[in-house]
Amino acid sequence: MTSDIVTLAHGSGGRAMQEFIRRELMPICDQELGRALEDAARLPFADGWLTFTTDTFTVQPLEFPGGDIGKLAICGTINDLAMRASQPLYISLSLVIEEGLKIDTLRRLLGSIGAAARENNVAIVTGDTKVVGKGQADGLFINTAGIGKPMMEPLPGVTRAQVGDKVLINGPVGEHGIAVLVAREGLQLQTELESDCAALAGLVADMVAAGGRAIHTLRDATRGGLAAVLNEIAAASGVGIEIDESRLPQNPAVMGACEILGLEPLEVANEGKLVAVVAPDAAPQILEAMREHPLGRQSAIVGEVMEGNRVTLKTLYGTSRIVDMPSGELLPRIC
Amino acid sequence: MTSDIVTLAHGSGGRAMQEFIRRELMPICDQELGRALEDAARLPFADGWLTFTTDTFTVQPLEFPGGDIGKLAICGTINDLAMRASQPLYISLSLVIEEGLKIDTLRRLLGSIGAAARENNVAIVTGDTKVVGKGQADGLFINTAGIGKPMMEPLPGVTRAQVGDKVLINGPVGEHGIAVLVAREGLQLQTELESDCAALAGLVADMVAAGGRAIHTLRDATRGGLAAVLNEIAAASGVGIEIDESRLPQNPAVMGACEILGLEPLEVANEGKLVAVVAPDAAPQILEAMREHPLGRQSAIVGEVMEGNRVTLKTLYGTSRIVDMPSGELLPRIC
Repeated sequence: MTSDIVTLAHGSGGRAMQEFIRRELMPICDQELGRALEDAARLPFADGWLTFTTDTFTVQPLEFPGGDIGKLAICGTINDLAMRASQPLYISLSLVIEEGLKIDTLRRLLGSIGAAARENNVAIVTGDTKVVGKGQADGLFINTAGIGKPMMEPLPGVTRAQVGDKVLINGPVGEHGIAVLVAREGLQLQTELESDCAALAGLVADMVAAGGRAIHTLRDATRGGLAAVLNEIAAASGVGIEIDESRLPQNPAVMGACEILGLEPLEVANEGKLVAVVAPDAAPQILEAMREHPLGRQSAIVGEVMEGNRVTLKTLYGTSRIVDMPSGELLPRIC
Repeated sequence: MTSDIVTLAHGSGGRAMQEFIRRELMPICDQELGRALEDAARLPFADGWLTFTTDTFTVQPLEFPGGDIGKLAICGTINDLAMRASQPLYISLSLVIEEGLKIDTLRRLLGSIGAAARENNVAIVTGDTKVVGKGQADGLFINTAGIGKPMMEPLPGVTRAQVGDKVLINGPVGEHGIAVLVAREGLQLQTELESDCAALAGLVADMVAAGGRAIHTLRDATRGGLAAVLNEIAAASGVGIEIDESRLPQNPAVMGACEILGLEPLEVANEGKLVAVVAPDAAPQILEAMREHPLGRQSAIVGEVMEGNRVTLKTLYGTSRIVDMPSGELLPRIC
């Protein structure tokens, strides 16, 4: 850590956060069990395994087109379990509420939490409520932790990408980040744009049924966007990754907004997009399974794992550029 | 809920919070599995059971005599698992940090988290970090969720107190609440007073070894203090409870501070005190096991479960008074 205070960049999903986790948090975590850089930890329990994950949601505004902090909290934790090929079973719900929050707002958000849990067959089984004084929190923070049951062995993991593997994604990137930014800043866009906030456990179950152990890595592209996820995979697996821009599914509204706002779409957060790194032989059948799922209609094979240690993008113009791990803070409180 | 905004009382552990949980949260929880009023949920997993709990810690100040928010977060979650007679195995750690928090402070608190986890043989296995802007949180909030393995069947539970059972406590009440209050307000007391913040899993393991199924209910007396816990047990089990003031272990510094400050010691929060409701035959051997443990030296049998639905205190003067569920907000951000 280079400064003596915590900055927004430490929570950005980018370089400063990676370094913070490595220096300050990993030493107090159980390295053997925890694998601090996975979306969910795989842990021995009784005679088998469980997966376990946690996330606190601080998104601002609390409600935005396509979702709200409640739906996000349930979907986000389901997704972290799904990325370890696990069936999400149980979720804990912990609220930090700022004094003065409207009961009507809270009720709406709790309703959204309940609906998301029911739709995805996960049970909310334990909880906690804290209220802090006015000005001591910003509306509402929600923590959800989740327990899942692994569907296969070995689990997909961030260290398991292999040279020659194909890289798949289930749709266009950047919708969540731009939708939240537009809602927060009251921007006017030409097109309606909604967050992609969705629970991916069903999609992953279909992918596992189609591809099984050929699925080496699954990762949802949240904070730091596709750029952060690809760099995490490359670094953890000791490989390079090349993405072909012409094959990336695109949402024109996102691309337009990014151009106007000067943002890099690959660094914008998603809440319903996953990256899969799979053995090349199985890529076509996994892609087919993804496209048959409602959350994977626009899925595509977008790149390949190479020798090296860099993430590169083959642009529409045939040139190649490095995709770096995002640094600094693109948009705080995106999730 | 009688008002249209959330108030501090909704997070107090008292009457308003009970009602909030019942009206707003229980409908979205899985009633069968969750038993929203237990300290930890007992859940089927593989061919057996696990226990699962969550807590967010918002204590202010972050450091106080006898502990800090980090130690509190680990001990609090261990205790919630221990109250369901479970061995704590895994803990998740989720931080919401206010921009500007000193790195030195954060490092000290993370060190305290690591030490508490090591001392109690629990592994921190997964985590999350969010940073919010200045003024959007107050220093640091920590969520810990925990997974435990039940040591016996049936588990102790808040609904299982029976008429004739004895009520035990492992020491004097009120130390945490008064220590935090003194630290927050910069009060000067005659005596040094430290929070009782401690992990009770070892004590409970010894109690289970001594008493097994004779232990009907275990509950740590946190927010709302002994008064809240006894009322919860009475209401959930459909019984009355009579406490004998002359048998309550007392810390003179707490009693003195409560007298000066006009506080009811039974309503002041603890972070290392449990109430056990046990079959009368087994009470002496459980008491003995408690007294042999470092965290139970001052344990005592302090009361009995009766017919009825009220919690009463037989005072030092031989009179009897009702101990109500605390209402309103005694001291916000105590844990």
